[in-house]
Amino acid sequence: MKNYIKHDPWSIIEEGFIPEYNEISESIFSIGNGMFGGRANFEEKYSGKTLQGNYVAGVYYPDKTRVGWWKNGYPEYFAKVLNAANWIGIDIEFDGETLDLNTAEVSDFRRELNMREGYLQRSFTAKMPSGKVVSVITTRFNSLVKNKIGAIAYQVTPVNFSGTAKITPSVDFDVVNADSNYDEKFWVEQEKKAAEGFSYVMASTKKTDFWVATGMEFHVGGAFDSSGRTPNEREKYVEVTEAGSVKEGEAFTIYKYAANISSMYFEKDQLVKVCAEEVASASEIGFDTLLDEHKAAWVQNWVKSDIVIEGDVAAQQGIRFNIFQLNQTYTGQDERLNIGPKGFTGEKYGGSTYWDTEAYCLAFYLATAEPEVARNLVLYRYKHLARAIENAEKLGFTDGAALYPMVTMNGEECHNEWEITFEEIHRNGAIAYAIYDYINYHGDEDYLIDYGLEVLIGISRFWAQRVHWSENKGQYVMHGVTGPNEYENNVNNNWYTSKMALWTLEYTLEGLKKYEGSDKLKSLFDKVNFRGAEETEKWEHILDNMYLGYDEEKGVFLQQDNFLDKELMSVDDITKGQRPINQNWSWDRILRSCFIKQADTLQGIYLFEDEFDIETIERNFDFYEPMTVHESSLSPCVHGILASKLGRKEKAYEMYLRTARLDLDDYNNDTEDGCHTTSMAGTWMAFAKGFAGMRVRNGELYFSPSLPDQWQGYNFHIKFRGRNLGISAKDGQINIENESNEALDLYMYDTKVTAPAEGSVSIEME
Amino acid sequence: MKNYIKHDPWSIIEEGFIPEYNEISESIFSIGNGMFGGRANFEEKYSGKTLQGNYVAGVYYPDKTRVGWWKNGYPEYFAKVLNAANWIGIDIEFDGETLDLNTAEVSDFRRELNMREGYLQRSFTAKMPSGKVVSVITTRFNSLVKNKIGAIAYQVTPVNFSGTAKITPSVDFDVVNADSNYDEKFWVEQEKKAAEGFSYVMASTKKTDFWVATGMEFHVGGAFDSSGRTPNEREKYVEVTEAGSVKEGEAFTIYKYAANISSMYFEKDQLVKVCAEEVASASEIGFDTLLDEHKAAWVQNWVKSDIVIEGDVAAQQGIRFNIFQLNQTYTGQDERLNIGPKGFTGEKYGGSTYWDTEAYCLAFYLATAEPEVARNLVLYRYKHLARAIENAEKLGFTDGAALYPMVTMNGEECHNEWEITFEEIHRNGAIAYAIYDYINYHGDEDYLIDYGLEVLIGISRFWAQRVHWSENKGQYVMHGVTGPNEYENNVNNNWYTSKMALWTLEYTLEGLKKYEGSDKLKSLFDKVNFRGAEETEKWEHILDNMYLGYDEEKGVFLQQDNFLDKELMSVDDITKGQRPINQNWSWDRILRSCFIKQADTLQGIYLFEDEFDIETIERNFDFYEPMTVHESSLSPCVHGILASKLGRKEKAYEMYLRTARLDLDDYNNDTEDGCHTTSMAGTWMAFAKGFAGMRVRNGELYFSPSLPDQWQGYNFHIKFRGRNLGISAKDGQINIENESNEALDLYMYDTKVTAPAEGSVSIEME
Repeated sequence: MKNYIKHDPWSIIEEGFIPEYNEISESIFSIGNGMFGGRANFEEKYSGKTLQGNYVAGVYYPDKTRVGWWKNGYPEYFAKVLNAANWIGIDIEFDGETLDLNTAEVSDFRRELNMREGYLQRSFTAKMPSGKVVSVITTRFNSLVKNKIGAIAYQVTPVNFSGTAKITPSVDFDVVNADSNYDEKFWVEQEKKAAEGFSYVMASTKKTDFWVATGMEFHVGGAFDSSGRTPNEREKYVEVTEAGSVKEGEAFTIYKYAANISSMYFEKDQLVKVCAEEVASASEIGFDTLLDEHKAAWVQNWVKSDIVIEGDVAAQQGIRFNIFQLNQTYTGQDERLNIGPKGFTGEKYGGSTYWDTEAYCLAFYLATAEPEVARNLVLYRYKHLARAIENAEKLGFTDGAALYPMVTMNGEECHNEWEITFEEIHRNGAIAYAIYDYINYHGDEDYLIDYGLEVLIGISRFWAQRVHWSENKGQYVMHGVTGPNEYENNVNNNWYTSKMALWTLEYTLEGLKKYEGSDKLKSLFDKVNFRGAEETEKWEHILDNMYLGYDEEKGVFLQQDNFLDKELMSVDDITKGQRPINQNWSWDRILRSCFIKQADTLQGIYLFEDEFDIETIERNFDFYEPMTVHESSLSPCVHGILASKLGRKEKAYEMYLRTARLDLDDYNNDTEDGCHTTSMAGTWMAFAKGFAGMRVRNGELYFSPSLPDQWQGYNFHIKFRGRNLGISAKDGQINIENESNEALDLYMYDTKVTAPAEGSVSIEME
Repeated sequence: MKNYIKHDPWSIIEEGFIPEYNEISESIFSIGNGMFGGRANFEEKYSGKTLQGNYVAGVYYPDKTRVGWWKNGYPEYFAKVLNAANWIGIDIEFDGETLDLNTAEVSDFRRELNMREGYLQRSFTAKMPSGKVVSVITTRFNSLVKNKIGAIAYQVTPVNFSGTAKITPSVDFDVVNADSNYDEKFWVEQEKKAAEGFSYVMASTKKTDFWVATGMEFHVGGAFDSSGRTPNEREKYVEVTEAGSVKEGEAFTIYKYAANISSMYFEKDQLVKVCAEEVASASEIGFDTLLDEHKAAWVQNWVKSDIVIEGDVAAQQGIRFNIFQLNQTYTGQDERLNIGPKGFTGEKYGGSTYWDTEAYCLAFYLATAEPEVARNLVLYRYKHLARAIENAEKLGFTDGAALYPMVTMNGEECHNEWEITFEEIHRNGAIAYAIYDYINYHGDEDYLIDYGLEVLIGISRFWAQRVHWSENKGQYVMHGVTGPNEYENNVNNNWYTSKMALWTLEYTLEGLKKYEGSDKLKSLFDKVNFRGAEETEKWEHILDNMYLGYDEEKGVFLQQDNFLDKELMSVDDITKGQRPINQNWSWDRILRSCFIKQADTLQGIYLFEDEFDIETIERNFDFYEPMTVHESSLSPCVHGILASKLGRKEKAYEMYLRTARLDLDDYNNDTEDGCHTTSMAGTWMAFAKGFAGMRVRNGELYFSPSLPDQWQGYNFHIKFRGRNLGISAKDGQINIENESNEALDLYMYDTKVTAPAEGSVSIEME
């Protein structure tokens, strides 16, 4: 855990240069616009420790899988997020000496990520080995408005000298993935040109044949007396050096405009042309105007999704950082894209899509974005259905059973630990549940018959084959699974997974009933070779006869068979210095312990809370929460929501802070690899579903707000079925502002109230 | 499964050259002498598919571990059997054309491994692309008498031409391990010299700093009119070309002598000197004399360890092949060595020592070799105790608890699948049991207090920490283990493992009691910081309160918790074409199935058979045998022994054949990687403990022979407490010949009989 980021409501600020934290800051200060993004690397040369990272949405590479011991069923290749062209480079030289913060004496270093307006700014004074002192202010953004464009204004003041200078902007496609399994380079040069004006490299990926053209233009303003430009090319690399002379105390600024154009959106033979046009247009518009329209778009974003917390700057900064990252990672315009676990902030982990999307991220986009955005997220899985069926076939399932991959980029599995790839199958449940979630929130009933049921049938078929009848128990059981708690592997009858399976079967049967006899259903049946009653009767039989572990004496659901045979301890019993256990204990010790990585049984109770009375929820919470180490970033939010529900305000606040400031405080000591982007949506959930007690039940909105003692108040906005609502809690009052021209009935603490059109309703906080 | 090896009682014979089987034959026809050995590669250049392999005993390299996903506790490096200098090379050229069976037309190809006399012979006629025809007979052996020396007589006859010839013997240290994780070469050249006489390369390994000098000399006899020699050197390589002319129809022979001298046995600065002396001496003695003394040694070997089977050539050849491999892999002269899973026949799998040594190989060496040989095998583990304690500490165990590695070369772990490395801990039990086995067989009672107890205390401490008290069960349980059946992972209360743990505690307590109050025990207690009653009382408490699964209704022990909840099927229910399941099913399907890779519960019943009545054994056999797929080479022998015990003659014979001809018939389709050396000892057990019903109970010998219907008779020899015994079964009679000058009381079918000194006793077969 670190504490070097300044607390500020709207900005992430680092003051003073700490080289050993540089890679952490590179992650935290990352910027993106949904189409491309990158880590907060320096523009000028830096010979110190850095993880250079630039990523173009949807562009991936299937790296050869690396394992110690092969298991049947592993994928041969893994789709990896691909490190793409470094377009930010601007090398700076004075009288032959290169500016490099690793060799200079650095003072007044400041890095700021302005979240409200979406740009990155860095300033510093550097004394170079020769004694020359320069001061620099650089501003960078990836335009939210012109989403192919990145721009930089790099302002330099020679503080104590006049002399010759060279500035060298570049585009560098000669990059490697830090996580490449066999040190392979994944890009092949196709075309390049270094010129005084537009310079570019176009490269393509091996195997997947994505093509990307990255080009640039720049001009220098201020006190720089130019003596001309020299273009220069190397393998997959172009640069242009502009030489000149500079004067003591007089600033000059390099304006660099770059564009990333990918074959995801344009024909290959158009890429260079489009790139040149985009760069030319950006350069013509100019940095300030580009930045102004970009800022305005960000401000607009905040209107939809901001959460204001009064009286707690750390919490305020945390939630805004989470919302900022989500909004710059995924804009929902392209249903081929998804929310990578590290967004555009790093390349660790193959693939980009986990169950995180459905179980955590969806809630945020449902509430803060246009319905199309969430729809694209659920459609993403619909488009991958054929591959999910192939994936299941590879494991021995038949007849259209679908197993979605644990991690994916294009529908294929990108993970190879047997205990996860083959066993952490509850992901299938989350994908099914997301269909319900989307329809329930936005009321898009047609989605079920048009797309949802086809996916639900595939998943139900999988569950029906994945359970087996146990003669011994006289019930169906599900063996060999790994629940959300990955600190248990290959267990039998994981309550959460079995519960998800049963829910899927039930919801699918409901859907089939709803559209019984319809033409659409008939043609769906044809499409999926549905075997009618043979299938539905099996599903019903499973629903009636499935084993779910429950302990009468303790009154708790059993995470898995024999869970109670463990040595049951509390997290407080772990010796000091042993946490996180995943960094201090051997894997075998972790597995045998009772400690839970992330919400597992409680994840199911959270999802299906209305099935249980409050005492049951309480008993389970009190049983499992003390054993939960929350070593997954996805865990605290769920416990926080339940704690809020149970009125455990201190626990709810503790859990909230832990998720909200995970990366800012480098809580898990791994932010240098990139931010925990998907779990950021969990922070939003911990707030909205936790403190605000927001639910959608049968298409109707419920709130049940509470206010942590540490806060004076909060307010936030959501979209719900055509309405824009502002919800605030302060001074013992809840106020719902209905900004749309249609009234809305909703429930406050289970009491029906009406938020009138363009009006508001207030009630007292309980 | 293949069937190209000719059936012959004393030889392994291949007739006709089948290039696609070449790598299989290279494994099967391997030769070794306990100190070095290698695959049956060709001497002359071969451009076809080949796995070149030469191995020097005890020389290993710690390769960097490769995994997909790191788990805490994995070893950073893996000791690997090291491919060493290729000393057999003799390139042959006529008028500038190189002899290469991959480009020639080959006829009359014959490869023979003469097991009785321990040499490899290959003959063929080759028509080279030019039309030249040569016929070759080459004989090779690694001397059992001068165990640093390998020798080759390579006889060539130009069939249809006279002309110029070049012969080029070489020593090539520029080799790679086929299983290198990062394509690294592990040898560094230290010194070399190519000369007309003695030529050599000395190389050392990186990190481990083993040094090996490999040198050669050769001379040419017969119709070769020499025009002189040209030495030639390359990186890690020396060769000497002798040019000359040859005559149609007149044979010449190259005699090549090589020595491998390693720093395991000599100072580094002596290696080249010793190598030169050894080669000179061999060359002086000459090929024929060297071969004669080598043959005599092999014949002598067979006197001790042969098994004669009458009326079944396939079975005869199988058992002799197994015995031959064991005898050429391990001679028991050096307690630093052990029996690698592939012996000198291949390099797959890191490390060399598995629990195979204790659970399978020991029985063979106990019965057929001098007591020192088995003693060295148990001492091997004694010497690794400190590392086993370190290994356990790495996993979180304390206070001198010892966990021996799953696979090792030097005491360190060489395996990295968590479900095996951390969980397949029953190996610790086999290592404990071997101490008992050795003492029980040879009566070396002092071994217990001098060495055995120290190991037993370490292992008992491990078990005492590895179980935990389950409040729920009110008993001790052992969670998170993998039994011998690796088709189950991370199970609770594996009956076999728990049973081994209990046995260890009991035997350790017995040992402590036996030496109670003795000075030796006191100093042992000091050495291991024994905490007296605190430790022994805990062990006794575990012995009294350990959970062992048993199903009352079925009357069977439970392989693990919830085993009966599985869908119980028979191997016969597996669809045709789906076996072996490990090549046809996904890992997850295998895990969830009831199918058992190798004897697990039955392994325990086999070990502790005297605890159970015959009905119990029968019930368990009839329950587990039909679910066992025997996809480990170590499995059929144990089922065979139990089948013999139960009088299931057909099953016993089926199991026996399966283990005896595993490699000869390439049963598992993987012999090309090397032979299954350790499981060969299982074949011996299936014979001796199965058909002959041999047991040692409280230091006394028992036989309970039966004869498969397919055989006319059998006889074999064992050593037992100073006696050499010949046991034969034929014509309804069992005869025990006591070849020593001391009578022996023993039990036949539980009846006491006496085998008089230098006399014999016969009884009727039951």
